[in-house]
Amino acid sequence: MNATTMDDIAVVGIGRTEFTRGSGRTTLGMAAEACRSAIADAGLTPADIDGIANFQAGDSHPGLAVARAIGVDQLSLCLDISGGGNQACAVVANAAAAVRTGQANTVVVYRSMNGRSGKRFGVATDNGSSPLAVGGEGQFNAPQGYMTPPQWMAMWTKRHQHVYGSTCEDLGQIAITQRRHAHDNPHAIKRELVDMDGYLNTRWVHEPLRLLDCTMEVDGAAAIVITSLDRARDLPQPPVVIHAGSESHGQGGSWDQWEDPTVMYSHYAAPLLWQRAGFGPTDIDFACIYDCFTYTVMAVMEDFGFCDKGEVGDFFSEGRATHGGDVVINPHGGLLSEGYIHGMNHHYEAVHQLRHHAGNRQVEGAETALVTAGAGPYGGALVYTVDA
Amino acid sequence: MNATTMDDIAVVGIGRTEFTRGSGRTTLGMAAEACRSAIADAGLTPADIDGIANFQAGDSHPGLAVARAIGVDQLSLCLDISGGGNQACAVVANAAAAVRTGQANTVVVYRSMNGRSGKRFGVATDNGSSPLAVGGEGQFNAPQGYMTPPQWMAMWTKRHQHVYGSTCEDLGQIAITQRRHAHDNPHAIKRELVDMDGYLNTRWVHEPLRLLDCTMEVDGAAAIVITSLDRARDLPQPPVVIHAGSESHGQGGSWDQWEDPTVMYSHYAAPLLWQRAGFGPTDIDFACIYDCFTYTVMAVMEDFGFCDKGEVGDFFSEGRATHGGDVVINPHGGLLSEGYIHGMNHHYEAVHQLRHHAGNRQVEGAETALVTAGAGPYGGALVYTVDA
Repeated sequence: MNATTMDDIAVVGIGRTEFTRGSGRTTLGMAAEACRSAIADAGLTPADIDGIANFQAGDSHPGLAVARAIGVDQLSLCLDISGGGNQACAVVANAAAAVRTGQANTVVVYRSMNGRSGKRFGVATDNGSSPLAVGGEGQFNAPQGYMTPPQWMAMWTKRHQHVYGSTCEDLGQIAITQRRHAHDNPHAIKRELVDMDGYLNTRWVHEPLRLLDCTMEVDGAAAIVITSLDRARDLPQPPVVIHAGSESHGQGGSWDQWEDPTVMYSHYAAPLLWQRAGFGPTDIDFACIYDCFTYTVMAVMEDFGFCDKGEVGDFFSEGRATHGGDVVINPHGGLLSEGYIHGMNHHYEAVHQLRHHAGNRQVEGAETALVTAGAGPYGGALVYTVDA
Repeated sequence: MNATTMDDIAVVGIGRTEFTRGSGRTTLGMAAEACRSAIADAGLTPADIDGIANFQAGDSHPGLAVARAIGVDQLSLCLDISGGGNQACAVVANAAAAVRTGQANTVVVYRSMNGRSGKRFGVATDNGSSPLAVGGEGQFNAPQGYMTPPQWMAMWTKRHQHVYGSTCEDLGQIAITQRRHAHDNPHAIKRELVDMDGYLNTRWVHEPLRLLDCTMEVDGAAAIVITSLDRARDLPQPPVVIHAGSESHGQGGSWDQWEDPTVMYSHYAAPLLWQRAGFGPTDIDFACIYDCFTYTVMAVMEDFGFCDKGEVGDFFSEGRATHGGDVVINPHGGLLSEGYIHGMNHHYEAVHQLRHHAGNRQVEGAETALVTAGAGPYGGALVYTVDA
């Protein structure tokens, strides 16, 4: 167990595009817009950028193309990470490490995707160019028709229900609360309030997961700019410090190979995160939990110690996961309601809230945020704080 | 300009497979063999590994699959970088940064490819699954038939010949010298000595580049293990310190967008590297220069200040680039003769030499090595040293 030394790195700019069901644009154009916007928000120009980092699954443009588009001639760091939402915290941690070691001074980190009109992550295909192509280990599951994230997630959810007695209504509480948060977020693609009847009346995607348990696939991009805390203090926005992080990546591919599928790999990342952060879940003001599905929120909240096993439904229904409660979960509505930019929009929201710029959905007095990434055998997390 | 702080990180293990024209194996199997071998060489077991990093261009298996194959249950770092030889130093630098910031303790870094029997980098294709698919910016060059690395390189070489009067015979000196080095390397796939007549009698690939100017595409894998220098000192092999690094990535895609095509982007990375290293080219005992082509060696040696412009041919013909000279260039024969593992085998050789384990091709008293990555608008470099 070792200390991390990222807390001298800060987020100084955030940017994003509109989130839509059909952008009619390239991922390059959207990436450029989000990056330009984040750089301007930081009070910088593209000439100040010497690093780019992003993650993608063969569905977006590489960093150098984006650099060219925004007018950056040369990069000291160009980190194109292959991966999905499992890398949404790691991409920030790796970029921060590169700033920490002096490989780059100021890095823009982005994710851009036509996740609705282009390659959808929720849909299986035998097309080799798809992120979920039936190749590699997928070939062994495909004959059983077990091919997509909602199917994997349904199996884990069932197991949790069997072992801990959690219910569909518990999942509904998560969907309903997050939608209520999205109602106050003009950027969210789904803002209509729902109640339990409304939730229960949506169709099964894969039992026990209904439509409202599944993330809202959208087109769009989000970006953040990071640099050293020293430089950050000379910039216009209040710096948001990358206080600590941890990751646990387990056996991928078939997504069913770990000992206890009622936890996710955040269960293994959590103790290290809290040790590195020097505090625990009760010190977190709000959390942007990677919510590809409602069940992910349930499992990850248990993994990070916000609730005991089986108690997440009550935690939500008692108002402990919203404003005035213990911790505000996904104050923007999350990926479920704001839109699925593969977790990159979680970083945007965390910074926006820690700057106290979130208007009528502001988490009062927010000073600490947890952002998580991934589900199942992937668990990544970062803790952000205000500059003390 | 900032200091890098990677010199408390060291390479403690190296491994590789046989290099062949047709492995008959998966990239997964070869990656696992190279990683297992590097871990064993370090005096460690897979249980000691908590990070994996690699680079690839859609032609290999991801880190988690390799982790599973070698029996690693869980990773704190899983860095799958998209890219080609341009990332061959960056992958080590990024992994070192992650060790530096405590994201992982001990990382195995690999590259595995069926670069001969599978997807060849020297061949253009309209197949979207190829690393050199005619998509993105390539679509604008393809109608002119300008589609492959030897074509791009031929244009730059011509320009260099025009401006600086360099000749085909100068390139031949590089090929001949490196082949002589490979002659003493049982692992090299091409070991037969060649002379200038032999060189000049090989066919044009793209004028002014002949067959022996082009890298030897092979199947195989190579891996190194890195950890903190503190831990390294408790392990059986003499630690090889990652002393300094720098990168410059310019406008990619069409590979023809920079101001002066008689230099490569290593020209921009070099001053920063020497500043960070605290010494210069005359202090380097041997260099593993990324030699996808002979001309890359010429340009990169000029960029890093080993020679003035146009003098590389003489430098080689006068024996200054071999044993007993100023600096031994590619003592293993380089990618041109040992085989094209996309630059990962350069790291293997650098460590092997700095341990003084290289037998009859040992660079006498070697204490410092330069390894470079990429060509054209990509320039990456690391300096390795013995543990002082």
